[in-house]
Amino acid sequence: MTAYDPGRLVPMTTHVPAYAAPAAHAPLERTTVPRRAVGEHDVLIEIKYAGICHSDIHQARDGWGEGIFPMVPGHEIAGVVAETGSGVTKFRVGDRVGVGCFVDSCRTCEHCLRGMEQYCERGATGTYNDHGKDGEPTYGGYSTHVVVDENYTLRIPEGIALDEAAPLLCAGITLYSPLVHWNAGPGKKVAIVGLGGLGHMGVKIAHALGAEVTVLSQSLKKQEDGLRLGADHFHATADPATFETLAGTFDLVVSTVSAPLDLSAYLSLVKTDGALVNVGAPEEPVSLNLFSLINGRRTLAGSMIGSIAETQEMLDFCAAHGLGAEIEVIPADRINEAYERVLASDVRYRFVIDTSTI
Amino acid sequence: MTAYDPGRLVPMTTHVPAYAAPAAHAPLERTTVPRRAVGEHDVLIEIKYAGICHSDIHQARDGWGEGIFPMVPGHEIAGVVAETGSGVTKFRVGDRVGVGCFVDSCRTCEHCLRGMEQYCERGATGTYNDHGKDGEPTYGGYSTHVVVDENYTLRIPEGIALDEAAPLLCAGITLYSPLVHWNAGPGKKVAIVGLGGLGHMGVKIAHALGAEVTVLSQSLKKQEDGLRLGADHFHATADPATFETLAGTFDLVVSTVSAPLDLSAYLSLVKTDGALVNVGAPEEPVSLNLFSLINGRRTLAGSMIGSIAETQEMLDFCAAHGLGAEIEVIPADRINEAYERVLASDVRYRFVIDTSTI
Repeated sequence: MTAYDPGRLVPMTTHVPAYAAPAAHAPLERTTVPRRAVGEHDVLIEIKYAGICHSDIHQARDGWGEGIFPMVPGHEIAGVVAETGSGVTKFRVGDRVGVGCFVDSCRTCEHCLRGMEQYCERGATGTYNDHGKDGEPTYGGYSTHVVVDENYTLRIPEGIALDEAAPLLCAGITLYSPLVHWNAGPGKKVAIVGLGGLGHMGVKIAHALGAEVTVLSQSLKKQEDGLRLGADHFHATADPATFETLAGTFDLVVSTVSAPLDLSAYLSLVKTDGALVNVGAPEEPVSLNLFSLINGRRTLAGSMIGSIAETQEMLDFCAAHGLGAEIEVIPADRINEAYERVLASDVRYRFVIDTSTI
Repeated sequence: MTAYDPGRLVPMTTHVPAYAAPAAHAPLERTTVPRRAVGEHDVLIEIKYAGICHSDIHQARDGWGEGIFPMVPGHEIAGVVAETGSGVTKFRVGDRVGVGCFVDSCRTCEHCLRGMEQYCERGATGTYNDHGKDGEPTYGGYSTHVVVDENYTLRIPEGIALDEAAPLLCAGITLYSPLVHWNAGPGKKVAIVGLGGLGHMGVKIAHALGAEVTVLSQSLKKQEDGLRLGADHFHATADPATFETLAGTFDLVVSTVSAPLDLSAYLSLVKTDGALVNVGAPEEPVSLNLFSLINGRRTLAGSMIGSIAETQEMLDFCAAHGLGAEIEVIPADRINEAYERVLASDVRYRFVIDTSTI
């Protein structure tokens, strides 16, 4: 990374090492990708760690179609500021920083102006598998460096190790946002459906918020983990008795699973005026009897990551409560193997790539 | 109605004229049904008017199964107090009163104690097609008299004619409750789906609450009515352009239709953080893509009538704003014909039975 020469009059695009899927369904391999020159409001981040999110695999295998290849996945990025543009005021070289699921947004729509960039009406710019305002493809965190506008860069507080912080940028905010929005806290009973990369952060955050936390997992295999992470109760959803025992129990159920759920069964666990919020979802439509909502004035809702301000709030909250993700750090040459293990649910609970190995 | 002799030591059940379905799918016919003696906390109501709710037809034809026959439908009851039990404190003979969808509840569960009797955990006692705590069947408002606990009796304020008040007891509260709960009011854009018995009250109430009101109806046939009732805009849902024009427009969409809706299409009309609330619903499950909720943190919810306190609040609100239902008053011998016309959507907007004709 020597191409950024302050003496140059015109900053130039440079190429940095990265792991990319050259085409849909192809294994990821080492390559280089261009990074734009550091603009006035940009920071150059030396990436230290990048989490592997389930959606990385989905996109790299073109599950949602229209993938842009070669694709460098990774939107759970933790690193250190290596250079700042002339107009940058929020960060200095050496600051610990993170980047989440988006690196820009229109900044002018109602949502952007209200600080809800994740719902930008023109679509926030994805950290990878998207095009920036300059028309160039964006490349994610499986790489050694990235250039990001300071307004879309988060500060990672002291008190969270960078490797454990990386997954907070997607998994952490994806759970923090609905838990706070739907008032998880003291006196509230919260269930987290699925104890994976998302769910384990849900347990930690809901517990730290003061709620009484129940894990609803397919089996009791992860019970010990669940209780250690902060759950008060743990039930197997494969056991039909679970749905009888827990009927009408929860103020809030957050589902992190992407398998099709029996929504009526899960809604039956929700109190009057309570909510079932989906942060994971299957591609296919699901079936729902609307009387499940009418009886008990229940809410079925969804939630998608969080805003920049909310993500910073989440990082500060996690630091204050000593929360990081449970991780397994891997070198870059094991990314493809890790993808297979994620698909087999063989990870507790997040793979994080040590990007110094790229 | 001469059987209530204050001189008697033991009050006795008496029989009163009514229109009943003798069996599922059989036409309604004149008969008599028993009414319990006026207990300490009961009021005897001389019924003046009873609205015909779509669910009357559904239950009389045993659409939900387990119907109790003979069945006297009617849960939109307006009348005058004819007698009061010795312990009654809220009403006097001659008071104008109403009865809605339920006439009792357990009074001890969390919901009853919080004044949300409609969600009573043991099930509120339906005004008809149910059994009271005494084990006897309940009979509804297509009748000359009914005996109801004063705590489940509403006061109909001066300023609403009794015939126009009757439908408020179900149609009115069914719309008022979600409109207030989801904050319809000044600055809010509210859509009412379906302009029938429920929908027309939704338009009136949402307008009186100060919201900007749009009717979404299959065609433009009722446009003139909709605007007269208080709508600011009227769109035909049969026109696909409606869904393009109105994408992301509404803070709140209340669906009153019981036909299966394309939920994703209606959710696309809802703003970020907005809600689509169903007060009507098809029997069959509907299909939903959860990404319709995740994109824009949208809520899909349901709502069922309202509590006693909220129903009183609604009646007071309607009186203060001069709101009653749009009705067609019919004699009892036209109930069966009216049922057919309701099923053919040939009513603007509620049939009300003049019970003096029974």
